[in-house]
Amino acid sequence: MGVKKKIRIGMIGYKFMGKAHSHAYRDLPFYFDCDVEPVLQAVVGRDEDGVREAAERMGFASYETDWRKLIERDDIDLIDIVTPNNTHAEIAIAAAEAGKHILCEKPLALTLEDAQRMYNAVKKNNVIHMVCHNYRFAPAVQFAKKLIQEGRLGKIYHVRAQYLQDWIMDPKFPSVWRLKKAVTGSGALGDIAAHSIDMARFLVGEFEEVTGMMETFIKERPVADSSGGLSAKSESTIMEEVDVDDASAFLVRFENGAMGVFEATRFAGGNRNGNRIEINGSKGSIRWDMEQMNNLEVYFADDENGLQGFRNITCTEEHHPFAGAYWPAGHIIGYEHTFINLMTELMKGISEGYSPSPNFEDGVRNQEILTAIEKSAETRSWVNVKQMRLVENV
Amino acid sequence: MGVKKKIRIGMIGYKFMGKAHSHAYRDLPFYFDCDVEPVLQAVVGRDEDGVREAAERMGFASYETDWRKLIERDDIDLIDIVTPNNTHAEIAIAAAEAGKHILCEKPLALTLEDAQRMYNAVKKNNVIHMVCHNYRFAPAVQFAKKLIQEGRLGKIYHVRAQYLQDWIMDPKFPSVWRLKKAVTGSGALGDIAAHSIDMARFLVGEFEEVTGMMETFIKERPVADSSGGLSAKSESTIMEEVDVDDASAFLVRFENGAMGVFEATRFAGGNRNGNRIEINGSKGSIRWDMEQMNNLEVYFADDENGLQGFRNITCTEEHHPFAGAYWPAGHIIGYEHTFINLMTELMKGISEGYSPSPNFEDGVRNQEILTAIEKSAETRSWVNVKQMRLVENV
Amino acid sequence: MGVKKKIRIGMIGYKFMGKAHSHAYRDLPFYFDCDVEPVLQAVVGRDEDGVREAAERMGFASYETDWRKLIERDDIDLIDIVTPNNTHAEIAIAAAEAGKHILCEKPLALTLEDAQRMYNAVKKNNVIHMVCHNYRFAPAVQFAKKLIQEGRLGKIYHVRAQYLQDWIMDPKFPSVWRLKKAVTGSGALGDIAAHSIDMARFLVGEFEEVTGMMETFIKERPVADSSGGLSAKSESTIMEEVDVDDASAFLVRFENGAMGVFEATRFAGGNRNGNRIEINGSKGSIRWDMEQMNNLEVYFADDENGLQGFRNITCTEEHHPFAGAYWPAGHIIGYEHTFINLMTELMKGISEGYSPSPNFEDGVRNQEILTAIEKSAETRSWVNVKQMRLVENV
Amino acid sequence: MGVKKKIRIGMIGYKFMGKAHSHAYRDLPFYFDCDVEPVLQAVVGRDEDGVREAAERMGFASYETDWRKLIERDDIDLIDIVTPNNTHAEIAIAAAEAGKHILCEKPLALTLEDAQRMYNAVKKNNVIHMVCHNYRFAPAVQFAKKLIQEGRLGKIYHVRAQYLQDWIMDPKFPSVWRLKKAVTGSGALGDIAAHSIDMARFLVGEFEEVTGMMETFIKERPVADSSGGLSAKSESTIMEEVDVDDASAFLVRFENGAMGVFEATRFAGGNRNGNRIEINGSKGSIRWDMEQMNNLEVYFADDENGLQGFRNITCTEEHHPFAGAYWPAGHIIGYEHTFINLMTELMKGISEGYSPSPNFEDGVRNQEILTAIEKSAETRSWVNVKQMRLVENV
Repeated sequence: MGVKKKIRIGMIGYKFMGKAHSHAYRDLPFYFDCDVEPVLQAVVGRDEDGVREAAERMGFASYETDWRKLIERDDIDLIDIVTPNNTHAEIAIAAAEAGKHILCEKPLALTLEDAQRMYNAVKKNNVIHMVCHNYRFAPAVQFAKKLIQEGRLGKIYHVRAQYLQDWIMDPKFPSVWRLKKAVTGSGALGDIAAHSIDMARFLVGEFEEVTGMMETFIKERPVADSSGGLSAKSESTIMEEVDVDDASAFLVRFENGAMGVFEATRFAGGNRNGNRIEINGSKGSIRWDMEQMNNLEVYFADDENGLQGFRNITCTEEHHPFAGAYWPAGHIIGYEHTFINLMTELMKGISEGYSPSPNFEDGVRNQEILTAIEKSAETRSWVNVKQMRLVENV
Repeated sequence: MGVKKKIRIGMIGYKFMGKAHSHAYRDLPFYFDCDVEPVLQAVVGRDEDGVREAAERMGFASYETDWRKLIERDDIDLIDIVTPNNTHAEIAIAAAEAGKHILCEKPLALTLEDAQRMYNAVKKNNVIHMVCHNYRFAPAVQFAKKLIQEGRLGKIYHVRAQYLQDWIMDPKFPSVWRLKKAVTGSGALGDIAAHSIDMARFLVGEFEEVTGMMETFIKERPVADSSGGLSAKSESTIMEEVDVDDASAFLVRFENGAMGVFEATRFAGGNRNGNRIEINGSKGSIRWDMEQMNNLEVYFADDENGLQGFRNITCTEEHHPFAGAYWPAGHIIGYEHTFINLMTELMKGISEGYSPSPNFEDGVRNQEILTAIEKSAETRSWVNVKQMRLVENV
Repeated sequence: MGVKKKIRIGMIGYKFMGKAHSHAYRDLPFYFDCDVEPVLQAVVGRDEDGVREAAERMGFASYETDWRKLIERDDIDLIDIVTPNNTHAEIAIAAAEAGKHILCEKPLALTLEDAQRMYNAVKKNNVIHMVCHNYRFAPAVQFAKKLIQEGRLGKIYHVRAQYLQDWIMDPKFPSVWRLKKAVTGSGALGDIAAHSIDMARFLVGEFEEVTGMMETFIKERPVADSSGGLSAKSESTIMEEVDVDDASAFLVRFENGAMGVFEATRFAGGNRNGNRIEINGSKGSIRWDMEQMNNLEVYFADDENGLQGFRNITCTEEHHPFAGAYWPAGHIIGYEHTFINLMTELMKGISEGYSPSPNFEDGVRNQEILTAIEKSAETRSWVNVKQMRLVENV
Repeated sequence: MGVKKKIRIGMIGYKFMGKAHSHAYRDLPFYFDCDVEPVLQAVVGRDEDGVREAAERMGFASYETDWRKLIERDDIDLIDIVTPNNTHAEIAIAAAEAGKHILCEKPLALTLEDAQRMYNAVKKNNVIHMVCHNYRFAPAVQFAKKLIQEGRLGKIYHVRAQYLQDWIMDPKFPSVWRLKKAVTGSGALGDIAAHSIDMARFLVGEFEEVTGMMETFIKERPVADSSGGLSAKSESTIMEEVDVDDASAFLVRFENGAMGVFEATRFAGGNRNGNRIEINGSKGSIRWDMEQMNNLEVYFADDENGLQGFRNITCTEEHHPFAGAYWPAGHIIGYEHTFINLMTELMKGISEGYSPSPNFEDGVRNQEILTAIEKSAETRSWVNVKQMRLVENV
């Protein structure tokens, strides 16, 4: 192990996702014996005190206050982008041109055009690229994929996906960057529906057409009066317009004929992080919920008469993808392990020279769908996803 | 009790719904002390042997083979219509003109025009009328209504309703009347989405606009080769086109600003009768599933910090509507009790001279929504529900 | 059907169990086509106004105020005993001697001696007899029995049964008859552990030895100041000693080598009627809970690797015992249907001339176990159940 | 942070528990800002190749093949004992005498005498000591403790604990060290019931008396034919006697008057690691299951009428002990985090000079209870736990 090639990580940003990513790089070698090994080389933040403290706490060997400096450094192999969405394109394109591999948080970009430019850049520069849709790396979801691929669910008829949160329901929750279109692109749609879209693409396939609606229940909010976290309240009397969606819903026709019903909201009280998906096929069904992420419910139509029912499978066995690396059966893992699994794929990709899915191409496909949903909400009609596709990609 | 006024029931049809209705009339007086008492006076069926046997089994005092005969009889107070949808209008209008009270199975009619004519007829003839949307009479649903009415959930943001079944997934399941547009009007939409629509109208209020999709996964089926029940298979080689929807889904904007996401399907393997609804408001949420119909999950946003979570309430207490009439707390009731509760309301309406909700007006409103969904699926755009409204109702 | 033999029921007592029994007799012919048909002939109560009202409400053709009168009547075929436990023996023996068939509420008697005398009497007089352990008649439990009988669970290792209630936790709940040893024999033990014992005997087999403990958490209670129901409070300042157990627990060794762990309590807050059982065998396991009585969870050790998990089966299909008589799959039944199913067996027994299990012999076996548990609690050691057996039964 | 005092860990053993412990030390500083910081200094194993590979994989700076060498090293502050139970006493006493702090896996020792000697040694040498009962460090369990301490459940009536596993049900599972009395002391009792006992002592208090039973369902097993893990099968034809319990169950009277019903088994098919506990008090109840370890179900008797039900609380909020250090609400943690939390307490104890509970005194108390259960199973009667207490501890 001592002679393994190091993949030196330069991470830009260090808040919630920075914590999740850096932890995953640190923890990965303990569980997985990859051919290459991530090393926390440098972290970037504009506030020097903040980034110095973060570097120390998370275990980075160094820090920078200018991301361009990081990209120029030749002791960095992979740029990990965990900054707000409006910065992804510029950073990623610069990183690609500097020959760095890239892991980028989702959604890939603020606009489809930016996403496409990013994808063009990584292709042109032959770097490894990946988008951080972590949820598909839960062992239960990976196992669902295996069942579907093997035809165990038969022809897929239905996809039913909900991503339900409740963290901004308080009208005093401040106007943070995730609520500003210029910074984030969209609200619940790009932040969490994007995860459901990724999962559905992973499990079922491509979207053909969509029609959707987007709502903003609380139209203005107080300016943030502190740097407070997700549960912060603001007592400020200065109000700002909320110009992104609090909730979005959309209907889908998949290319393979399946119907999809999707909903993403930050206004579903009691659901802290309720990322759920159900799939029904001609031979069976699956159900999954992130808040019980180790469990996969599986139904087989050809189980014996009288004995048909959803099986509640705790996907913690060696028979379940990634699970064997952790603990004995029944000893559950959590949210952070979805990142570790993803980073394992990324290390494998770097080692073997391919960009594992979900990569920037997946990111572009995802963004086409997000764009189609936004357009359908504006035009109040169905929109064909492929019509969103940009010319340069042909 | 011996001197109670009898309400003499004449029921037209005697299959699945006939069984549910006649049982409810029989069982009602045991549990509820209404001012009037239903009596199973006569049942109608075209097949004399069949209807005679049914009358005996279900406890009707007499039978007829022609429904017009029944309506002419002056020993009948209430006509209960449990025949296929294409017959509802003619029977109900004749019954109303004969001065009979009416309970009609859902959906009210084959078309909105018919539904409106039926409603006009009952109004003109001053008879009591009701549509048999039984699910809203589960004690847990009634209790949810009470919580919402009292403002315990605050402003409603989301309605999420799924009605999931799987009884026709086998391609050998035959082409029964419920799969023929001329007889049934629509498939999953009118049969089960209609129930979800009724429940949402009951709990949350009126629909403003909708956009929907309808799918038929299995386009033709063998002709029925027996009179077989719901799980029958047909080995016939003669195929018939299926011209109704196997599944429908639609997005809703409610008049009060809430978003709705609805799905009804007969192709969700493993869900025998999964009629689920979730509602999220500014102060709380509820979740309900017919397969665990005694339970209501309730979340309150103002529960103490650290102690917030969905409460699983077994609605079998005297504090829950209708439940006190049955068994001690924790001793659950079932599907048939939703009918008993509904008939209790109907008896109260007859006794006191009003038509309890859901009545034919609710049936018309429901049908307007069904029509708007069908139109939206055809036009691939949003349809305003009020624009469906027929002139004669203004 | 009109010419079916009537089984004329004479019921003694008319409170909670009277309601459950009379309803079941009324409802039975609607669902089941038995060879004989129960008729509510007469009900007995000491308070004439009360019993007259009860007769009318429940649908009995007549009433008596003296149970001996009832037994003398030659228009009664079956005596149904739903009175407090201290009256069972005298009534049942008199009924047997009068040649009446008997259904008796559980536990069979106040003492094992009485139970044995009752059993002797019914054997001697060749009448049909049954004890009303209704829970084993839930379709899910009957289906579990079928699985075990077919060897699907293999050799049984574990039985884990809990009967959890909370209706007397309030110290102001009065000193009702169910809390008086002279009337009831024991508390949670005879009232609810007896049900768990019956279910375990039904599913797994005979008990070899037991050791138990019994506790009374609230040692005295106010005298009842009204005729109030199960949730009554008493404001009386006159206190009476509680001389029965609030809770009992016991360990079991079954004759077939299985281990049992049993608990019955009226002090498990939040559990209104939580009657649960789990069984683990060498090939599989089952779990059941009365509050979700339609569901049986089933695990098979030989399910495919990776796909092993408890299946949640909604036992509402034609493949599940008794369920086919009710509603289509997924349309659940409730508490009262366990009685209907039991009475169906009783009618079959009367028609065919045998005493269906659980009969008085089962009642004696159950009482032997209750007695052994009480003795073990006194002697603080294990007690062999067979050593309780009375000589006259040899 | 850079100047924090390092606590240099020397770990003896490196299998399942070695993995869990070493991971926790590594991961702890990422999440918790303790005053001292663990460092993986050395690991011990008898097989040099094995231990070298383990040291590298787990991140230890060095290794030894003789545990006595480790204890002699002056660059070690804390000895972590994860070897089989029969070695705990010798190692721990030597470590204490060398002035090392100690974390020891449970159960503390092979016998109560050994446990007492270990406790005497740590007291005499003034080192910090702790036993690794990790499950009480789940945030949900810690939160339950807080509720109980605050009196939110009132007077405790019932403790119901089950630890259900199924990993040795296959008769071909080999005769590993955990099945040999000379090495392990007891089977399910010391391995998993010991965890339930610790949790009950933590949440409810001291045990007064017990009566129990112990069973060995499979009396002999093939010798292990490989070094295989938990799911290994052996095809060897050489059989060895199994002299420990496959399953144990016991009744408990707590000092505060509560009743306890406990069961631990490795023969409960379908339960991979089902560590469950339920507690009922006069004011409320809690339920917890390790396989859904983030959830605590809580019932309050004084919730409003009609709104009483178990709340399902996802204990991932800043309001829940330890949870704030990890991820936002709804983003669950897993098995390994119970160790991280425990080690955090241990670091705090070392920093502040006290031995956090569960320490060796708790280990002795636990062992007294295990001993009392074994004795009760032999004598087939109740055993008072205090009577087990050894003189030297008075």
